[in-house]
Amino acid sequence: MLCTHFLHPPLALSILSSSSSSSSSSSFPSSSRSSLQLSACCSAMEDDDGSSKSKSKSKFKEFPFVSVSHKSLMLDLVSTLENRFQSQLLPSTLPPHVQHYQNTASTAQASLHIRAGHPHSSIDFILGSWVHSELPTGGSLDITSLSGYLNSSNDAPNFVFEMIRSSPTVLVLILDLPPRKELVLWPDYLQTFYEDTQLDKHRQALATLPEVQPYFSSSLYIRTSASPTAIMVRIQTANDGGERMEEIIANHLDPISKQVLGIWLDHCACAKREVGEADRACLKKRDGLIRNKTIEIDLGSSFPRLFGPEVANRVLEVIKEYFTV
Amino acid sequence: MLCTHFLHPPLALSILSSSSSSSSSSSFPSSSRSSLQLSACCSAMEDDDGSSKSKSKSKFKEFPFVSVSHKSLMLDLVSTLENRFQSQLLPSTLPPHVQHYQNTASTAQASLHIRAGHPHSSIDFILGSWVHSELPTGGSLDITSLSGYLNSSNDAPNFVFEMIRSSPTVLVLILDLPPRKELVLWPDYLQTFYEDTQLDKHRQALATLPEVQPYFSSSLYIRTSASPTAIMVRIQTANDGGERMEEIIANHLDPISKQVLGIWLDHCACAKREVGEADRACLKKRDGLIRNKTIEIDLGSSFPRLFGPEVANRVLEVIKEYFTV
Repeated sequence: MLCTHFLHPPLALSILSSSSSSSSSSSFPSSSRSSLQLSACCSAMEDDDGSSKSKSKSKFKEFPFVSVSHKSLMLDLVSTLENRFQSQLLPSTLPPHVQHYQNTASTAQASLHIRAGHPHSSIDFILGSWVHSELPTGGSLDITSLSGYLNSSNDAPNFVFEMIRSSPTVLVLILDLPPRKELVLWPDYLQTFYEDTQLDKHRQALATLPEVQPYFSSSLYIRTSASPTAIMVRIQTANDGGERMEEIIANHLDPISKQVLGIWLDHCACAKREVGEADRACLKKRDGLIRNKTIEIDLGSSFPRLFGPEVANRVLEVIKEYFTV
Repeated sequence: MLCTHFLHPPLALSILSSSSSSSSSSSFPSSSRSSLQLSACCSAMEDDDGSSKSKSKSKFKEFPFVSVSHKSLMLDLVSTLENRFQSQLLPSTLPPHVQHYQNTASTAQASLHIRAGHPHSSIDFILGSWVHSELPTGGSLDITSLSGYLNSSNDAPNFVFEMIRSSPTVLVLILDLPPRKELVLWPDYLQTFYEDTQLDKHRQALATLPEVQPYFSSSLYIRTSASPTAIMVRIQTANDGGERMEEIIANHLDPISKQVLGIWLDHCACAKREVGEADRACLKKRDGLIRNKTIEIDLGSSFPRLFGPEVANRVLEVIKEYFTV
C-alpha cells in the first residue's frame, strides 16, 4: 500500500489500516473469526511463544534474508510486543500454507504471523510479516513488518512498523501510531497521544542524519491515514556494501523504534479510555471504512503480482478474516 | 500558526483554518459580520478593486518590502483571485487602522486585506496579508499570504498560500488546498479534489530542486490540518545575495502557485456540490471547531509579541468577525 508498486499487501495492510476489527461491544472478534479463535483455544500444539507446531511455524521469527541488525531489531520488537501482552494474546492459528508461502517460480516467499487478542483484551490482533522477493535486476526486495491493532473498546492509535529494503544501501522505514479519530476535530486526542508523549522528537532525531530523507507514499490515501508524527523516511547510504546502513539500523532505527513501540504499549494499548456506545459505533464505522479501502487498494495490485492469483487469494482470504470489521 | 514562533496570526490563521465561516444556509455571514458588510454596501468610497479610499487602502498591494519576483507573484495571485470572483466579492470594509498597522517601536508593520463574499456566493471571504518585521540579528522577516475560504454551501477545500522569508536566501512556502472533510472517510472527496486534479505533481516538481526540503511545522495541529498534497517546503539557496532565490521564485514557485490556484478556482471554488442540510451542519461544526482551535493557538502567541497587546487585540477582533462561525 505504502509502496503500491512493490509492497506485499499484508504488510501494506498492516501500515494502511489505522483501525481495529473487533465488531462487538464485548470486544469479541467478528463471527468470521470465531472459528479461527476457537481452534486456537482448543489447540494442544502450541509452543511457548504461541505458535502452532507446524513445519513452518518458526519461519516468521527466522527472518532469514535480512541483515544481522535488521533481524535483531525485528526480533526485539516482536518479543517486546508478545511478552507485554502474553496473557492477552491467543496462540497463532494460521494454517501452515499461510504462515509461509511462495510463488510457483520460487522467486518470492513470505511468512506471516497473526495472533488475535483475547475477548477481554483491548488488543484486536498483532500482525508480523516478512517478504523476500528476487528482483529482475539482481539483488532482492526484503520487507519486514510488525503492527498492533486495538479493538473498539479502546480508541487509542494503532502501531505500525515496516522496513523495506531494496538494496543493502536503500531502506524505507515506516513507523507510526495512526490515529483512530480525526485529529483536527479532537485536539485532546492529539494532545494525549502525540504531543504529551513527545512522539515527534523521534522523527526529528532521525531527520538529523544526512542519509535520511522524508518518504512520500505514492498513495494519497496512505499519506492521509498517517499521524502528524509519522516517521516515513527513505535512507540511502554510500556504496559500502551496507556497512553504514547497518550502523544506522543498530544505532538509530533500533532505539527509536523501541521507544515508539514503548510509547504505544504504555500510552495507547494500555490506556484506560472511556468509549461510550455512540463513540464505539463511530469508531467501528471508521475502522471498517478504512479497512475496506485498504483491501480494495491492495487486492488488485502488488500481492497477486508477487505471488500469483492463487496464493494471493489464499492468503488474503485469511487476512481478511482479521481485518474485516 | 505554521511557524508559531515567528508567524503573524492573521497569516497563520489563513493557513490553519481549513474552514469557512458562513453560518446560515443562505450563505449569509454571521450577524456579527453583517454590520461590516452593510457599511461596505453603503460605501461610496470604493475604487475599482473594491478597496475603500483610505490613506492606507493600497498598502496591501504595494508589498513594499519583498523582492521583485516575490511581489510580482503576490500581485498576480491576488488579481487572479479578485478578477475571477469580482462580482461575488463585497468591497473591503476594514478600518484603516486594521488595513495597516505597526508596533509602537515601528520595528514591525503589517497590512491586511479581507473581502467577504456576496450572500449568494459560495465564497465566504478572501484574505491577504503581509508582515514586515525587523529581526534583532539584522535583516528582516517578511511574510506574505493569500487565502480563500468557502462557506457551507460548498464543501470543497479552501485555498492557502504563504511565503515566509527570513533572509534573502531562506524561504518557507506553504501552498495547499486544506480539506474540509476527513479524507480517510471520504475517498471520493480525495479522488475528486486531490487525485483527479493531479495536485501532487506540483509538489513533486518542486521537490526535484536541490535547494528544496520538506518543511515540518512545529504545530502538530497545523500538520494534521493539511492535505496529503500540501506543499510545505523550506528553500535555502547559496549566499549569492538572493539571486538564485529570485530565479526559483520566478521560474518555479510562480508557475506552480498559479497552477494550484487555478485548480482551486476551477475545481473547488466553482464546484457544483450537493451539500444537504445534515452535511452542511457537519461542515459548519467542523469549520467552527477548527477556527476556534486556530484562534486559541494564535491569540496567545506570536501576534501580541510582534505588535504588542493593544494592536494585536484591535486587529484580531476584526479578524474574528470573519473567522467565527
